[in-house]
Amino acid sequence: MSNELDLIEWIRARTVVGAQTPVGIGDDCAVIETDGGPLLVTVDMLLEGVHFDLSCCTAYQVGRKAMAVNLSDIAAMAGVPTVGVVVVGLPTLIHETQPMELFSGLRDLADRFAVSIVGGDTNRSGSGLVVSVTLLGRPTGRGPVLRSGAHAGDWLCVTGELGYSILGKHLEFSPRIREAQRLHERYPLTSMIDLSDGLAADLHHLTDESRCGAILDSRAVPIAAVSQPNDGRGPLDHALNDGEDFELLFTLSADAGRRLIAEQPLRDLGVHVTAIGRITEAREVLIDDSGTRRLLPRGGFQHQW
Amino acid sequence: MSNELDLIEWIRARTVVGAQTPVGIGDDCAVIETDGGPLLVTVDMLLEGVHFDLSCCTAYQVGRKAMAVNLSDIAAMAGVPTVGVVVVGLPTLIHETQPMELFSGLRDLADRFAVSIVGGDTNRSGSGLVVSVTLLGRPTGRGPVLRSGAHAGDWLCVTGELGYSILGKHLEFSPRIREAQRLHERYPLTSMIDLSDGLAADLHHLTDESRCGAILDSRAVPIAAVSQPNDGRGPLDHALNDGEDFELLFTLSADAGRRLIAEQPLRDLGVHVTAIGRITEAREVLIDDSGTRRLLPRGGFQHQW
Repeated sequence: MSNELDLIEWIRARTVVGAQTPVGIGDDCAVIETDGGPLLVTVDMLLEGVHFDLSCCTAYQVGRKAMAVNLSDIAAMAGVPTVGVVVVGLPTLIHETQPMELFSGLRDLADRFAVSIVGGDTNRSGSGLVVSVTLLGRPTGRGPVLRSGAHAGDWLCVTGELGYSILGKHLEFSPRIREAQRLHERYPLTSMIDLSDGLAADLHHLTDESRCGAILDSRAVPIAAVSQPNDGRGPLDHALNDGEDFELLFTLSADAGRRLIAEQPLRDLGVHVTAIGRITEAREVLIDDSGTRRLLPRGGFQHQW
Repeated sequence: MSNELDLIEWIRARTVVGAQTPVGIGDDCAVIETDGGPLLVTVDMLLEGVHFDLSCCTAYQVGRKAMAVNLSDIAAMAGVPTVGVVVVGLPTLIHETQPMELFSGLRDLADRFAVSIVGGDTNRSGSGLVVSVTLLGRPTGRGPVLRSGAHAGDWLCVTGELGYSILGKHLEFSPRIREAQRLHERYPLTSMIDLSDGLAADLHHLTDESRCGAILDSRAVPIAAVSQPNDGRGPLDHALNDGEDFELLFTLSADAGRRLIAEQPLRDLGVHVTAIGRITEAREVLIDDSGTRRLLPRGGFQHQW
């Protein structure tokens, strides 16, 4: 789930605490208290012409991505995904094999993370292809990691490399489910978010929820090793603002951070963890460019509109 | 949820019993076994130009209906709705007040049934308005009512009146949540479904899942008291095939059925229950027109495509 437009704010303002108490409405998943313990719920929709273009990708990739973005939301809470339901709107002119390709993309990634697709709804769409996945999950025994627990002095860390996702990673990324569970099991994480809108935007989401600020070290930001397009934007700009990295941004105490960086606990999964800054008390997000500090604009991925 | 196209069949064929065991995949909701007991999950999406036309209804009505169709799925299992998540795709040219009208329609009906909207995702849509609701619920202590429990000899009953929903009821109907719970509490229901595709189509869904047949008494079918349009179709055709009645079709033993019809347990809610036929062993659905029996075509609501 994301904070685009004002639905989340609207929900936050209007939420009535009824039979169920919603917790962490600013997080990647809603956390619902049930008789069987907390339940994670997340939903994300992909729309043709906004989130994807079927002349540049396959229906399989669209299905895979629709499952992957929701898995990434569960990963952001260090949760265990369990079941999903799917709704699709199929355009009249869709190629006859594309619905099955779409479903196969959904199914293959669901299988990889032991997620059962237990129901759904298929409709004709008067315009483009629409696919929406709702995913349920549960926290591990250590509870969900929220966006709101960062403290001044905490280290700010990130998995993998950032930027240039549009060159392919946005369709092919591996949701950091296992990585998040291992980090949460071995280190006292204080907050976490997945990078869907871009480092600059999502760092602001995290500090907003934690009521704190941050200083980002520009030289530490890990930038994707790709053939950089000659588009007049520097690599740091791409790493800060491209979006759809689907890596994990998280915080933990300085002591735990030092230990984690030395141990590199995700090495066998092929994932490097980098310390890229620290949490501050002052509620502003700064970027330190070789000693010069400036306010970091929220920036962020705006899709194509 | 519904059986349109082949998503449900595809899920049914491919379902891997993993960490969670999906039960009743042919039902209105999926039933998920959790540590806290069974959980009901349903999802339905409404698309502009397919399910509604904003020149004929308000955004408030679209929001209300998006919540109502999902509540009707929970009602079909005699469940208690608890929480929902919402995704919307908003067209660029939407009137500025329409998103809030949409959300108000969702919210007002959710409030009426003590449903908390705990999260969501808002996107721009490149074409029409899209809204999808995922609703969670729990069965009552008597468990969920499935489509699959009807037995030969059972009576077939329906709430309310059928047909001509397009004249207004399809936007204004009251999901039969309270009615279903009361029926399930007082009588041993053997199967139930909500009438979304139309009596003819949904009776076939029920008998398919229960592996039985039925005989419908055409004279007993309760037909909505409206000014009938002069469209060359008779009232019975409308009642059998219009769809979107969102009434309850259910079965119970003949003894229990006789008691229910005499007691009319929903009278104080303004809802009459009618016995309209009985379940048979032979796997065919017949309609008895004043003594003449013929096979009842599946028919059913096909939206506008």
